[in-house]
Amino acid sequence: MSTASADENSLRRTLAQKQSTIEIQGGAVRQLKSSGASKSEIDAAVQALNALKLEKADIESKLQAAIGGGAGGNSAASRDAFRQNVVNTLERRLFYIPSFKIYRGVAGLYDYGPPGCSVKSNVLAFWRQHFVLEENMLEVDCPCVTPEVVLKASGHVDKFTDLMVKDEKTGTCYRADHLLKDYCKEKLEKDFSLSAEKAAELKHILAVLDDLSAEQLGAKIKEYGITAPDTKNPLSDPYPFNLMFQTSIGPSGMSPGYMRPETAQGIFVNFKDLYYYNGNKLPFAAAQIGQAFRNEISPRQGLLRVREFTLAEIEHFVDPQDKSHPKFTDVAKLEFLMFPRDDQVSGQSAKRLQLGEAVSRGTVNNETLGYFIGRVYLFLTRLGIDKDRLRFRQHLANEMAHYAADCWDAEIESSYGWIECVGIADRSAYDLHAHSEKSSVALVAQEKFSEPREVEKLVITANKKELGLAFKGNQKMVTESLEAMEEKVAMDMKADLESKGEVEFHVCTLGKNVTIKKNMVSISKEKKKEHQRVFTPSVIEPSFGIGRIIYCLYEHSFYTRPSKAGDEQLNVFSFPPLVAPIKCTVFPLVQNQQYEEVAKLISKSLTAAGISHKIDITGTSIGKRYARTDELGVPFAITVDSTSSVTVRERDSKDQVRVDVEKVASVVREVTDGVSTWADVLKMYPLHSSETAEE
Amino acid sequence: MSTASADENSLRRTLAQKQSTIEIQGGAVRQLKSSGASKSEIDAAVQALNALKLEKADIESKLQAAIGGGAGGNSAASRDAFRQNVVNTLERRLFYIPSFKIYRGVAGLYDYGPPGCSVKSNVLAFWRQHFVLEENMLEVDCPCVTPEVVLKASGHVDKFTDLMVKDEKTGTCYRADHLLKDYCKEKLEKDFSLSAEKAAELKHILAVLDDLSAEQLGAKIKEYGITAPDTKNPLSDPYPFNLMFQTSIGPSGMSPGYMRPETAQGIFVNFKDLYYYNGNKLPFAAAQIGQAFRNEISPRQGLLRVREFTLAEIEHFVDPQDKSHPKFTDVAKLEFLMFPRDDQVSGQSAKRLQLGEAVSRGTVNNETLGYFIGRVYLFLTRLGIDKDRLRFRQHLANEMAHYAADCWDAEIESSYGWIECVGIADRSAYDLHAHSEKSSVALVAQEKFSEPREVEKLVITANKKELGLAFKGNQKMVTESLEAMEEKVAMDMKADLESKGEVEFHVCTLGKNVTIKKNMVSISKEKKKEHQRVFTPSVIEPSFGIGRIIYCLYEHSFYTRPSKAGDEQLNVFSFPPLVAPIKCTVFPLVQNQQYEEVAKLISKSLTAAGISHKIDITGTSIGKRYARTDELGVPFAITVDSTSSVTVRERDSKDQVRVDVEKVASVVREVTDGVSTWADVLKMYPLHSSETAEE
Repeated sequence: MSTASADENSLRRTLAQKQSTIEIQGGAVRQLKSSGASKSEIDAAVQALNALKLEKADIESKLQAAIGGGAGGNSAASRDAFRQNVVNTLERRLFYIPSFKIYRGVAGLYDYGPPGCSVKSNVLAFWRQHFVLEENMLEVDCPCVTPEVVLKASGHVDKFTDLMVKDEKTGTCYRADHLLKDYCKEKLEKDFSLSAEKAAELKHILAVLDDLSAEQLGAKIKEYGITAPDTKNPLSDPYPFNLMFQTSIGPSGMSPGYMRPETAQGIFVNFKDLYYYNGNKLPFAAAQIGQAFRNEISPRQGLLRVREFTLAEIEHFVDPQDKSHPKFTDVAKLEFLMFPRDDQVSGQSAKRLQLGEAVSRGTVNNETLGYFIGRVYLFLTRLGIDKDRLRFRQHLANEMAHYAADCWDAEIESSYGWIECVGIADRSAYDLHAHSEKSSVALVAQEKFSEPREVEKLVITANKKELGLAFKGNQKMVTESLEAMEEKVAMDMKADLESKGEVEFHVCTLGKNVTIKKNMVSISKEKKKEHQRVFTPSVIEPSFGIGRIIYCLYEHSFYTRPSKAGDEQLNVFSFPPLVAPIKCTVFPLVQNQQYEEVAKLISKSLTAAGISHKIDITGTSIGKRYARTDELGVPFAITVDSTSSVTVRERDSKDQVRVDVEKVASVVREVTDGVSTWADVLKMYPLHSSETAEE
Repeated sequence: MSTASADENSLRRTLAQKQSTIEIQGGAVRQLKSSGASKSEIDAAVQALNALKLEKADIESKLQAAIGGGAGGNSAASRDAFRQNVVNTLERRLFYIPSFKIYRGVAGLYDYGPPGCSVKSNVLAFWRQHFVLEENMLEVDCPCVTPEVVLKASGHVDKFTDLMVKDEKTGTCYRADHLLKDYCKEKLEKDFSLSAEKAAELKHILAVLDDLSAEQLGAKIKEYGITAPDTKNPLSDPYPFNLMFQTSIGPSGMSPGYMRPETAQGIFVNFKDLYYYNGNKLPFAAAQIGQAFRNEISPRQGLLRVREFTLAEIEHFVDPQDKSHPKFTDVAKLEFLMFPRDDQVSGQSAKRLQLGEAVSRGTVNNETLGYFIGRVYLFLTRLGIDKDRLRFRQHLANEMAHYAADCWDAEIESSYGWIECVGIADRSAYDLHAHSEKSSVALVAQEKFSEPREVEKLVITANKKELGLAFKGNQKMVTESLEAMEEKVAMDMKADLESKGEVEFHVCTLGKNVTIKKNMVSISKEKKKEHQRVFTPSVIEPSFGIGRIIYCLYEHSFYTRPSKAGDEQLNVFSFPPLVAPIKCTVFPLVQNQQYEEVAKLISKSLTAAGISHKIDITGTSIGKRYARTDELGVPFAITVDSTSSVTVRERDSKDQVRVDVEKVASVVREVTDGVSTWADVLKMYPLHSSETAEE
């Protein structure tokens, strides 16, 4: 239980006490009135009642603050206002556009407009540089259309579902857990009469929401009397809805297919070829960037929950017996917010840990997982994600798939709360196993021993003749069960047979016990020489939701500052040059043939240097032009105010330096490529101060 | 009729004559035998017959050569062998992989493996640089999932079909035109007894194949007795099959959607926002790179006809009254193979034309279209497409959509023949009109006049009262037809009404003529002052099939050369550095701790310089290591043979220079970035000749 919620609980209790005191006092007032007490007596009692009401109002506002004041200390209202401001700016400047807007759009589908598209391709280019190139990963590019068999093997056909309820009259569909979540949140936030116990119950539901079965969800919806939000009609029982977009491959209508819900499966099915391509050596990583599709029941939260999105996924294949990483020392010294499972369960909050210690203490399962956590931290913060609003949260035991060894989410705090943007999971051998089994193609690796190794192997030999005599038609099933025994079970049986001559044995496939006698089976351990080890590699999977990262980046980069005249608030996106959609603008200070020509000349050299930029030769005031480009997050502006030298302005400091026309493109190139910093530029070139330039 | 096919025709005629001579001579021999002629007489006749047969065989082999010897002078067999060699190399080195191979794959779906994925991302990065950045285009990124209404407006729901036939017993589906095409080609290539007339008929069918209706195709399939290729079962009549992958958006099942068959529609529906983003100014171009989907009936031709592919499309919006282009002079001097409509019709072949002349003579409709043709030529040849196997072919009148003003395809010659890789079409205002109409949102541009302009406008005023009296219930349709008259029709009617008092007028919506009298309508021209012109922009659309370009590039880059020992042919891809999947390899000459450390040091500086590279520290001979990387098209190899300096080898010349360890990363960077050429490097650094180094 965190401090905040402890406060909240004690406030709810105080409030409930105050309420009953008020009721008692109200009763006293009524009593006095009906018993004909004196005016002064009544007045005093009413005054006391009013004082109590004021105290109650005071507690209510404290409670309001305790509920609304999430991390960051902002109230829900101010978070909403902030988000509205960001989103308005993003839509107005076409960072994104609801898709097919002229046809009134489709929920959960968005276009990236020109600056958004540019930010996205910058993020992806940096991802390729930071992961694929730096780690020599094998990048692949597989289709989105996927035949059913692949997604049957991966489990998506059977299990990739959300629970849905329908408005029983209109047929409108809702996500069952969202309705329950909304109910609980609204109650907790707005109902001050809620008892501390009831509040705790609702909080518990929110905590275990993901684990509730259809029956449990349905029962809660009934218990709380939740109805369809739009119509207040009753709701159906929850039932599973598969989130994949289904289609049909080829003209026959006989080959069902789906739009892939993730890119990872394309890598798993190619493991054999990729392993060969890598010279039959482990570890290696394959990577893929591409579209994925989820037919969400009722998308909301804007860019955070959409029906089509770009994923960037890495599958790092590693020997399950050796998950060390040669470059772990490069990241071991990093310190950042981590939120281990135990701290979550014991109600603590995320704290700064050193990655190396987290791995050596076993908080993070292994070095390779730790290495990727560190690399993800570097990736996100270099993009411009605020390190104080980034945490790595470990999955709770009940959140994690049964096969996973460990799993950490990079969560970024936004106005919607903490958002899972990157999942970093040790998925063990699950996926390769599943595809091996379904396809009957062995997806394994070999370790050749430099010298043959002696290993002890369990050998179970069933005497089929004796078993046949004893069990007749059941012989086959008994034999199979005997041969499938694990080492401990088998060795126990061996001991029992030797001491007692017979033993009871449970055959699952028969659903009953049988009596096994000494002559029916021989169990022994034999030593064998092996020249290699064949095993299914483990997979460590960092999976990036690119759209979510970009949206959080927008929120973290956004700020407002007053215009010079002080009459309005101007919007700024403080993107680092790496991410900025346009690196530089070129303005002639005044409309003038000569300046325009210089501007065009500079534009040419910027194009040659590969710097995306924009010329603005409109007659608008220079201040307005700066404001426009600040709102697009353009880090540098070149203003042409002479034919020999120009000024370069940095967006956030608004500092300007004077640079020769011939040099300006290379100066801007160096500072956008990260070869030099703005501080370096300030040292090398004279500061330009112009009162008139800025507005 | 080209020269080749003229040859072929005369050979077919000679062959037919020879055949009948042989038959006559055969008859003569039989006659002699049955009439008991002398042995010497019979022998002489048989000898003559044999001589005739030899002559026939000679003509047949000439005919075979005439048929097989397509452009490039290779026979069909050697083209197939070449292709097999390229494709084997591509698959073995994982440039591409049939998707979901462990599940026996899905026709028409391919993965890009590591080197293919890298080539693709290099091609796309260069496309962005060459088009988007250079021309300041507005790049957008829209979803693949598209609601039905959008593709209804664009015409895809109704018309994006291929004609299909089914095996009447097994239900297997085939493309009707492909079966007819195969039949004609096989007959023409293998049936030497074909008459010149029949051959001409089959060739005509091949020429007009795309224009045949379902009925015409069905009739031909019946006439020629074409059956299902796999079973020889009879085929159904051809019927249209829509090529879009259909799906359903949201959980209700009530919102049909499709996977987009092209990216263009995403741009058209955003025209209004993009025009605003561009400061309400024309011309401007929007661009999009993304996946597109076509559920081909029976995909073949490997990477050339696939069910999912990457398109890169540009929509350049321009005032239909001014299609000049300010940068046209930059490309006007280019000369390359063009194949205008008239030359195709008159049986000539493609010839080198100067682009500027092609535009000024009106061969190419306008400067903007011409500008893009030139830019496409530069793009493709810089990627490494052989300029002699690249032509721009104008669409024939019957190939072009009815609304298109002009259309040219960049066709690249491959082992499959000439392949359409880029379409460059002036689509006029068709798409914006269609979406304006369907969405009721005006997708238009305005031209503000600096001074108001006087324009003459046609004004047609129907007298509804008189029309109502005359036509009763049909009044509305007559009125609408009158008001919709074009200027010439209206002015003719005005003249007729003035001279004759009445006139016959055809009302399409009624399907009959009515008599219009003078008092029913007034027609006049009025002068008005206008302050602006509102119009629907024309669209010029260059559309790139990225996968096709890449496949053709593979074929154009592939060659073999003997190994040093001369005992085998080694494969080489001669990719330019721009495209090469890996720019550089680093090899220690021998396995040795010191050299390995130098190699790792060089690798680090290459990573820092952003150069994708690979270290190979296996003990394989240096010659084998070179051969391996030549087959991946790696342009440069650094061999560490000392701790102070290393050699750099260029792939195609096999020349080597010696460079200091500290300098080598920057030398490789400059030559891969195109800042310097290999010739520059040869001038600056000492040539290294080592007999032992190469194998």
